[in-house]
Amino acid sequence: MTTQSRILIKGGKVVNEDFSEMADVFIEDGVISAVGSDLQVAAGTRVIDATDRLVLPGGIDTHTHMELSFMGTTAVDDFHTGTKAAVAGGTTMILDFVIPQKGCSLLEAYERWRTTADPKVCCDYSLHMAVTWWDDTVKKEMETLVHEKGVNSFKMFMAYKDVFMLHDHELYAVFAQCKETGAIAQVHAENGDLIAEGAKRMLSLGITGPEGHEMCRPEEVEAEATQRAITIAHAANCPLYVVHVMSKSAAEVVANARRNGRVVFGEPIAAGLGTDGTHYWHKDWAHAASFVMGPPLRPDPSTPGYLMDLLANDDLSVTGTDNCTFSVCQKALGKDDFTKIPNGVNGVEDRMSVIWEKGVHSGKMDENRFVAVTSTNAAKIFNLYPRKGRIAKGSDADLVIWDPKATRVISAKTHHQAVDYNIFEGMLCHGLPVVTISRGKVVYENGQLFTNPGAGRYIPRKPFAEFVYKRINQREKVGKPSAVCREPYTGEIISVAPKRF
Amino acid sequence: MTTQSRILIKGGKVVNEDFSEMADVFIEDGVISAVGSDLQVAAGTRVIDATDRLVLPGGIDTHTHMELSFMGTTAVDDFHTGTKAAVAGGTTMILDFVIPQKGCSLLEAYERWRTTADPKVCCDYSLHMAVTWWDDTVKKEMETLVHEKGVNSFKMFMAYKDVFMLHDHELYAVFAQCKETGAIAQVHAENGDLIAEGAKRMLSLGITGPEGHEMCRPEEVEAEATQRAITIAHAANCPLYVVHVMSKSAAEVVANARRNGRVVFGEPIAAGLGTDGTHYWHKDWAHAASFVMGPPLRPDPSTPGYLMDLLANDDLSVTGTDNCTFSVCQKALGKDDFTKIPNGVNGVEDRMSVIWEKGVHSGKMDENRFVAVTSTNAAKIFNLYPRKGRIAKGSDADLVIWDPKATRVISAKTHHQAVDYNIFEGMLCHGLPVVTISRGKVVYENGQLFTNPGAGRYIPRKPFAEFVYKRINQREKVGKPSAVCREPYTGEIISVAPKRF
Amino acid sequence: MTTQSRILIKGGKVVNEDFSEMADVFIEDGVISAVGSDLQVAAGTRVIDATDRLVLPGGIDTHTHMELSFMGTTAVDDFHTGTKAAVAGGTTMILDFVIPQKGCSLLEAYERWRTTADPKVCCDYSLHMAVTWWDDTVKKEMETLVHEKGVNSFKMFMAYKDVFMLHDHELYAVFAQCKETGAIAQVHAENGDLIAEGAKRMLSLGITGPEGHEMCRPEEVEAEATQRAITIAHAANCPLYVVHVMSKSAAEVVANARRNGRVVFGEPIAAGLGTDGTHYWHKDWAHAASFVMGPPLRPDPSTPGYLMDLLANDDLSVTGTDNCTFSVCQKALGKDDFTKIPNGVNGVEDRMSVIWEKGVHSGKMDENRFVAVTSTNAAKIFNLYPRKGRIAKGSDADLVIWDPKATRVISAKTHHQAVDYNIFEGMLCHGLPVVTISRGKVVYENGQLFTNPGAGRYIPRKPFAEFVYKRINQREKVGKPSAVCREPYTGEIISVAPKRF
Amino acid sequence: MTTQSRILIKGGKVVNEDFSEMADVFIEDGVISAVGSDLQVAAGTRVIDATDRLVLPGGIDTHTHMELSFMGTTAVDDFHTGTKAAVAGGTTMILDFVIPQKGCSLLEAYERWRTTADPKVCCDYSLHMAVTWWDDTVKKEMETLVHEKGVNSFKMFMAYKDVFMLHDHELYAVFAQCKETGAIAQVHAENGDLIAEGAKRMLSLGITGPEGHEMCRPEEVEAEATQRAITIAHAANCPLYVVHVMSKSAAEVVANARRNGRVVFGEPIAAGLGTDGTHYWHKDWAHAASFVMGPPLRPDPSTPGYLMDLLANDDLSVTGTDNCTFSVCQKALGKDDFTKIPNGVNGVEDRMSVIWEKGVHSGKMDENRFVAVTSTNAAKIFNLYPRKGRIAKGSDADLVIWDPKATRVISAKTHHQAVDYNIFEGMLCHGLPVVTISRGKVVYENGQLFTNPGAGRYIPRKPFAEFVYKRINQREKVGKPSAVCREPYTGEIISVAPKRF
Repeated sequence: MTTQSRILIKGGKVVNEDFSEMADVFIEDGVISAVGSDLQVAAGTRVIDATDRLVLPGGIDTHTHMELSFMGTTAVDDFHTGTKAAVAGGTTMILDFVIPQKGCSLLEAYERWRTTADPKVCCDYSLHMAVTWWDDTVKKEMETLVHEKGVNSFKMFMAYKDVFMLHDHELYAVFAQCKETGAIAQVHAENGDLIAEGAKRMLSLGITGPEGHEMCRPEEVEAEATQRAITIAHAANCPLYVVHVMSKSAAEVVANARRNGRVVFGEPIAAGLGTDGTHYWHKDWAHAASFVMGPPLRPDPSTPGYLMDLLANDDLSVTGTDNCTFSVCQKALGKDDFTKIPNGVNGVEDRMSVIWEKGVHSGKMDENRFVAVTSTNAAKIFNLYPRKGRIAKGSDADLVIWDPKATRVISAKTHHQAVDYNIFEGMLCHGLPVVTISRGKVVYENGQLFTNPGAGRYIPRKPFAEFVYKRINQREKVGKPSAVCREPYTGEIISVAPKRF
Repeated sequence: MTTQSRILIKGGKVVNEDFSEMADVFIEDGVISAVGSDLQVAAGTRVIDATDRLVLPGGIDTHTHMELSFMGTTAVDDFHTGTKAAVAGGTTMILDFVIPQKGCSLLEAYERWRTTADPKVCCDYSLHMAVTWWDDTVKKEMETLVHEKGVNSFKMFMAYKDVFMLHDHELYAVFAQCKETGAIAQVHAENGDLIAEGAKRMLSLGITGPEGHEMCRPEEVEAEATQRAITIAHAANCPLYVVHVMSKSAAEVVANARRNGRVVFGEPIAAGLGTDGTHYWHKDWAHAASFVMGPPLRPDPSTPGYLMDLLANDDLSVTGTDNCTFSVCQKALGKDDFTKIPNGVNGVEDRMSVIWEKGVHSGKMDENRFVAVTSTNAAKIFNLYPRKGRIAKGSDADLVIWDPKATRVISAKTHHQAVDYNIFEGMLCHGLPVVTISRGKVVYENGQLFTNPGAGRYIPRKPFAEFVYKRINQREKVGKPSAVCREPYTGEIISVAPKRF
Repeated sequence: MTTQSRILIKGGKVVNEDFSEMADVFIEDGVISAVGSDLQVAAGTRVIDATDRLVLPGGIDTHTHMELSFMGTTAVDDFHTGTKAAVAGGTTMILDFVIPQKGCSLLEAYERWRTTADPKVCCDYSLHMAVTWWDDTVKKEMETLVHEKGVNSFKMFMAYKDVFMLHDHELYAVFAQCKETGAIAQVHAENGDLIAEGAKRMLSLGITGPEGHEMCRPEEVEAEATQRAITIAHAANCPLYVVHVMSKSAAEVVANARRNGRVVFGEPIAAGLGTDGTHYWHKDWAHAASFVMGPPLRPDPSTPGYLMDLLANDDLSVTGTDNCTFSVCQKALGKDDFTKIPNGVNGVEDRMSVIWEKGVHSGKMDENRFVAVTSTNAAKIFNLYPRKGRIAKGSDADLVIWDPKATRVISAKTHHQAVDYNIFEGMLCHGLPVVTISRGKVVYENGQLFTNPGAGRYIPRKPFAEFVYKRINQREKVGKPSAVCREPYTGEIISVAPKRF
Repeated sequence: MTTQSRILIKGGKVVNEDFSEMADVFIEDGVISAVGSDLQVAAGTRVIDATDRLVLPGGIDTHTHMELSFMGTTAVDDFHTGTKAAVAGGTTMILDFVIPQKGCSLLEAYERWRTTADPKVCCDYSLHMAVTWWDDTVKKEMETLVHEKGVNSFKMFMAYKDVFMLHDHELYAVFAQCKETGAIAQVHAENGDLIAEGAKRMLSLGITGPEGHEMCRPEEVEAEATQRAITIAHAANCPLYVVHVMSKSAAEVVANARRNGRVVFGEPIAAGLGTDGTHYWHKDWAHAASFVMGPPLRPDPSTPGYLMDLLANDDLSVTGTDNCTFSVCQKALGKDDFTKIPNGVNGVEDRMSVIWEKGVHSGKMDENRFVAVTSTNAAKIFNLYPRKGRIAKGSDADLVIWDPKATRVISAKTHHQAVDYNIFEGMLCHGLPVVTISRGKVVYENGQLFTNPGAGRYIPRKPFAEFVYKRINQREKVGKPSAVCREPYTGEIISVAPKRF
């Protein structure tokens, strides 16, 4: 059933970022070959009826950590189950993070990730690279990654002190190198020093449960680092991408910077848009622990709605999940100490549904903005557009047929991820994917998966994405600082005094 | 030379709102019939070389007042000279305002405008309708205009007390009718009562010159009315469009409302983006008077840059000109009393250049955002998209070939408008139109006009533009207020006391 | 016991706005005659031990409506029970509002209020005057009230359409007259037109319960009017006082205006600081109805904390109660239609406790700021300082001995007001008055009242309060607008054309 | 003439923070012994007529660096000329900074400063202590300084990388120690890493002049650090004082934090309130260099007015000068490299006049607020109130007789400072000191100085200033974090995996 190389999607409403139109979509050999009405198609073409349904560009999850080894254990969703779940939810591409340890080669880590992922992925993917330390080797490896490995995004941690955290002058250096090579800098924005102090304090007060996780890193710790990262990036004239914007105040920092002309993009995630941090105070430890991630979800219950408002208004740009799933028995490593709970939540499968429900069904955004924030903007920022992120002739045949009227209830019992809970458990969602097509093949249809491990491809990305760099380059050209022309000073000059103290 | 019905634009970079690509554009019978490379074209097709140039959707000027009779005189640019100047500047469509007097029929005014404009226009145009009074007749005429005359936008004045100004309850009523009929409400947002008081005060202090025009209506008078209009529109769940956003504070009101989820669009104009209100203090009366318009340009010199930042960031959406040109001898009607200076400035010709210079050349926005704010967003808001505002198969062949490297200096000596000064006099502009194509014909090329009065068409617009109304309608559906279910109150009730005072 | 004319308060900590000090207070003949240590006192002086207690200036409630006839009935707390309750809570002065009907004489209303109040009040009081209509008579009466009756504050309604509401140009006129006479303008800031429309809409949707009261006048209706009032007042260079600031957004409008240099004061009230509008959705109609007041309490539960933050930070200045109590059987007039529920809540007795609990006990403000916002600032704004609002030699002996460690639970069962519910029911308060002294006499001690109807006095207030008017006057002097000096325009002038439409 | 120990100031208007009153002031033995009318004074009392004049608490300059050795040279105003100039300008107390080098003893530095200053000062003074490095010795010395040396304020540098700069975790540690000992933490808030990078960049671009000084550390570098310091201080529950707030954005950060309840105080300085950074672009090198200080003055000319608005509104609290004067021949050390220009400007003499002119004469603040920001608030924050900062019985006789109608023009030709330029050169000031009294003696009268080196005293300050710490302590008490009570987790626990990478 999934072997056809030609598919005609008929009768649907094709939704792109800029507008929607009634049109058929013809797919050949993994690519969209026509969009329009009365298309001529070859015999043997499979026809899928999309009447009363929307045809959307497949989702791009900008932020996953499949099978990541972290905090003493390994995330249970690997590149196979993770991408299966993705396509079941309407996502046809993920961007995962290579995270080398301090002192280790970026290139080697990159190769390890490729070796792990390539045989398992059921849809296309690409890789961001984390820069967790800094010297000239790293600088050179960044260049190689950009020019030879298709990496155009580098993520730096301002948290995880002594593990991944970079200092401000290192951030500046990495940002400068991103700028030089045409990559975009990404940051995990939390003040690692304050988290370390906060964690010590909470534990000393006898607060060992998941609530301590949030209390030791309240949202101003995130907002501060966000402001700092934006300031440093601007000093380096480097475009910036703030991963997992989790709080109202951090989101406002991003939004204000954009209003002020900064080239900065904020990425809220499904978890932050769909649920909140009140769960950390849940009486059941396992329930509370399952929501632990960094930065934490926020206890202010107006947070998700606010983040969605900003996402709808293009103050925030794009959505990921930070999908990094640890089952309850793994979370239990931190049963007596919240700092030992492996950080991470699910999302790769439910992101599209959660955003539709909280964004589109609620009336905060329309279907076109939905496409922008779940797919198109990611493609633009990471230089995949219009190959990805648009339904148009010549684009990859990654798309989803979406039923805006159908509903489902999210549950760990029915989801396709390996993890044994779901942070959106019980959420009623209007709108759901009925067919997912990846690389021109149906990989999900009416609840059934037709995936193939290794069917996906690593998608290299070129530097200097126009969406990101046009303004950067123009500013560089017209905004170069210049000196005042002056007559030299010819007056008296004191001789330098010996130090007095 | 302009009679060919087939044109191939070769070798250019086609710039749409979402991205740019090297592609040729083939035009037949007034419509774009293909965009791509290696296009097959019929013999006899004229080929225009666009190497090193950009091919942009023709500009849409959302706000003009050609040959408007106002304040005792008539604007010197009529629909002929006005649209000639427009195409010379790269604009291929204007939206003008029908302004009936209080008590007069909207339909009759509409017909009068059509009769005036149809034989003169050199490019396509459409008409907004001003609602300057309110009763059931007006309500019914609005319906007719929407359903039969292609009007989907109505503008109300909060200024011009006793002339055009509506009161809050009237605004609410008109907004409600806009919502009912699927139109968008537009407002001139200034507090008319305060302007009247301010004008009296300035004159009583002996301030009769153009500076008094700004001093009697400082920017908070604009910001206040903007906030009020947004509040009233939200109460009526009606989309709102704020014409000529002139000040930082008013722009911020719009921007904050959008962040807060309001369906509101702000329109800065070329004058506000390209110059400022310090000119009102110019020692030469005629110079100062030529900048008089309402709301006034602002004396804070950081205003244009701020408005451009917000326009770049989609806090403001779209650009017009409020082109309403009175020559110096007309301005002189107010030589002893600024309240008698006919309000209006030029802009229809220079808008594209000014925005390119201050927006794109400066690095504040890229070429794609330029297209969005000069053309695409207007087409979306007023329901002309993708017929207008996009270079794509099937769209109207309204487009501009733009040389981003060429420069020119704006001057009344060389402009094509009828007015005898230019508020942008002396501005060096990078980027300029070299060829303008309207309805598939070259109407401007290398400095020469090939226009034909009456060649343009009135473009009717359907209500319920999706870009505007999808969210409005969804909110209406899911957000309906509901009552609390309660047991009836069964306790004691006092009897109503006679009035005490 | 209450007849002594000499009292020595010993061993307490005297708290003024600027600092606290251990000091004794000696009172003679209604006035504070000494503050310090080792005071020489006459024989027969009553000594009150204030060890471990605070000695505070008596509270000033800036906003009450005792026995007001409104919406068909009369508030149950009259000037007697109302002021008894006041002193029981530590408040020693109230400012009530004279509210003449449209078209009626302000002076006559003033006299009626005096006649009613004078024989009943148990503490000092003064009167604000509402201006509910406008013509030259009113203008002249305002002058008389200022010069002869001790009124220096006039309140205007932007709500209560067709009843009390003034239009913008009337507001401007009244503000101008306030400025002229040295009074402060007060506004009830809500958009009356929108409330009228909203109420119609809610009723038409079948929403008749108390929740409809809030839904028809959401907080942006308040914020809009607040912004408008500030703009109008600034145009008239008139100081402004916004009564009952009830919402976060309105409070932010006031705060931002102050930051921008406007002479504006915001008055939150006990109800808004101590409880919220979620009660309107209470299942018990009588419970819900008891919270009905205008502007409504807000359903956003973070409102009280935010208002308190702004009060602590001097973004808001002073506190009242809008005490206007209608018992449940009176509220029941609106049992089938929320627009008929008499508007008003209690507060005059509990204001000091509520602010101490939510402000001081919470750590948001210290005891000195508490004195400022409950007493001193009111005295300064209304030109009673330092006679009222300060514990200093020469000031009136209106003061409270406060036990910061004692607690009580607020309840209608124990309060001294006539109304049969209490919107703060069940609130645990740290900090309470143990002795209240009014005009040098103990009127409340350890739970017992020693009040005397008619013992209070009407306190006339002079215009041009320095705290309010120094800046206004200086700006008037240095900020007068001036004209540009120019050569007259000597060019051509067009002749005025006949009107075209 | 200056030897009288008794002075009666007659007929003036005594201005305190809270109000002004016509009153005489009687001074005996360095202390104010009475304020009022018809005071009984001893024979031989000198009477000074203050008719039509104001009597103000003497100014307190919160921020000076007399004779500081810095950047290879020593500030030319020493404790003698500096304090002479101070009293000539109406300032009767200065707070100077002890700045030990990294690794050096704080106590020794303190003693050195005392030894230097004590014999020279012509008015009272006190000392802040800079903490420029961190270990347990420093921690202990801080304790000693608080308990034995009267130091309750410690300043940390976030700039001057490798010289004075502390890292975030060190800041946290010092803030925690401040909190522990009841001191207030002060910060120089600029991002030192970014300044270092910026300076390198400017020099590499050939920008060596004073304009480079600002361009390498634009205002967002200040705003970022301000936000960071506030965040760290809040994490430590430590009160914070931001010295020399120089930019609109940094000031807004402080203002917003205060609105949000943070215990933070912002100190603008005379330079920032009275002039701006456009001077760095001056064609004359010596002129430009004379304005060099860190953080720099800002080129946005609306900065001083904005800072004054915030100061008037209590968003900023108190004013200093950062007086640290280097003559032109010293500035010339950096004639070829702006990074070598000794940082510092004048101000100690002119602060009062500048603030009166720009604040009071302009109508932004009244005379009472003037007293608050030039004297009272400093006294409160640094725990000197009401001994300093108030004209009241028992307070120190440090006061100024101020003529609000007199004018002067500031000039290096007439000032009393040792430095050979004046950054306020040419400023016309309304309002000036006619008599200054320090410690009960006339030290300045009608242009003549009557000072005595060593006449001033070091004023020790106690920790836990109530104005600062009441809220901090209460929050500590009621806001302690608490854990959720839960059943222990009893489920499965994974065993820790070996590290994968």
